[in-house]
Amino acid sequence: MPSTTTPTLLPADDPRALVDDPLAFGVGARVTLAVMADRYVELITDALASADAGGLVLETGDVSTYAGGTEHDLLRWLTQLGAAVAASGVHAAMVVHLSRGCPGEVVCALPGGAGPRAVETPGGVRTGHFATAEWALYPLADEVTGDVEPDHMRDIYTAIARARDNGTFVASEHFVTRLAGDLGDVLGTVVAGWTGVGRSVQHVTSHLTVSLNSPSHTAGEVR
Amino acid sequence: MPSTTTPTLLPADDPRALVDDPLAFGVGARVTLAVMADRYVELITDALASADAGGLVLETGDVSTYAGGTEHDLLRWLTQLGAAVAASGVHAAMVVHLSRGCPGEVVCALPGGAGPRAVETPGGVRTGHFATAEWALYPLADEVTGDVEPDHMRDIYTAIARARDNGTFVASEHFVTRLAGDLGDVLGTVVAGWTGVGRSVQHVTSHLTVSLNSPSHTAGEVR
Repeated sequence: MPSTTTPTLLPADDPRALVDDPLAFGVGARVTLAVMADRYVELITDALASADAGGLVLETGDVSTYAGGTEHDLLRWLTQLGAAVAASGVHAAMVVHLSRGCPGEVVCALPGGAGPRAVETPGGVRTGHFATAEWALYPLADEVTGDVEPDHMRDIYTAIARARDNGTFVASEHFVTRLAGDLGDVLGTVVAGWTGVGRSVQHVTSHLTVSLNSPSHTAGEVR
Repeated sequence: MPSTTTPTLLPADDPRALVDDPLAFGVGARVTLAVMADRYVELITDALASADAGGLVLETGDVSTYAGGTEHDLLRWLTQLGAAVAASGVHAAMVVHLSRGCPGEVVCALPGGAGPRAVETPGGVRTGHFATAEWALYPLADEVTGDVEPDHMRDIYTAIARARDNGTFVASEHFVTRLAGDLGDVLGTVVAGWTGVGRSVQHVTSHLTVSLNSPSHTAGEVR
């Protein structure tokens, strides 16, 4: 949930008034589902139709689907989306780009000093589907007004430690951290790491490539 | 080409001695090819076999393939890889993660102060295949020893200006820049933006999701 700051007590032009509004703060994801089967259109359409997008603003493009809203709603939607694709049994890649603290593209529409935005860590939900993934986490801005001093390495170590604790951490690879386990645990780890860094840094992005139903995965790996 | 700094004239423990070695500097890419057809294994295997990987170190995993080497070799390989998939006529996503200046994962194996690494901008090669793409570019470290002062916004504006000049820029979207055009021009724009920022910032990453042969693309868009 958003922090307990009450926006109405702040002057209208104070950027901190925007922190509690996930869309004004630019909390969102872009997702590409790439289903490796001739009937990919049907499978992608079905997955998008079955996932609960409650609370989210969705915009579908030809490269990815954008979803804006709270971290909690995003994690639920991403998990249901991935689980629907996984349930088809077909090999698929799910590419997830998370961002918060910088609505807009080249120039943030949100001024520096608006954040950070502290939320409770959304809990992941087990799906019964095994996934492997490669994860990158980027704290991108240090100009904050919160009580916690920015410390990128502390926050990234915390994110890695959580992955070790919940068993999703596999290894450090070139440029990424390799994760494996239940799809819900993998996505929960990534969203928790992203929101965790966001407690002290306004602009945080994260990129994740997930492999589902890979022929390289053995049946024994499915939990 | 690498800068004209001669590594042998530097003390062995000077991190600047590593700049001219692309592998020591962590110049590389991770690529995921997701081909949306039942015969995806054959198409991905064929594309990997046909692309010229000369000069590159390759490691294939179940989520992505890592390639390490010079920016020039990486652009040639990425372009040939994507063109081979596009030539199949099958809809596919190509996910590219570029990184330079930070070999390793949580902690850079390269000390701060090693870079930046200045190289000539590799030229893109036209492929005859139309692509759309979403692009994010991240300057991640400011501690540099070069002659050019770091200025993230200047470098990102320069990258966007190049995309406008060569006609690949389409629009600013949530969290990304949308590109479209010949696959070779799109990849050339991205690699040029990444190396351009790298003239003043040691650690620069970039993430690109490319859509090939999308049913949303009309025949008129193919150049």
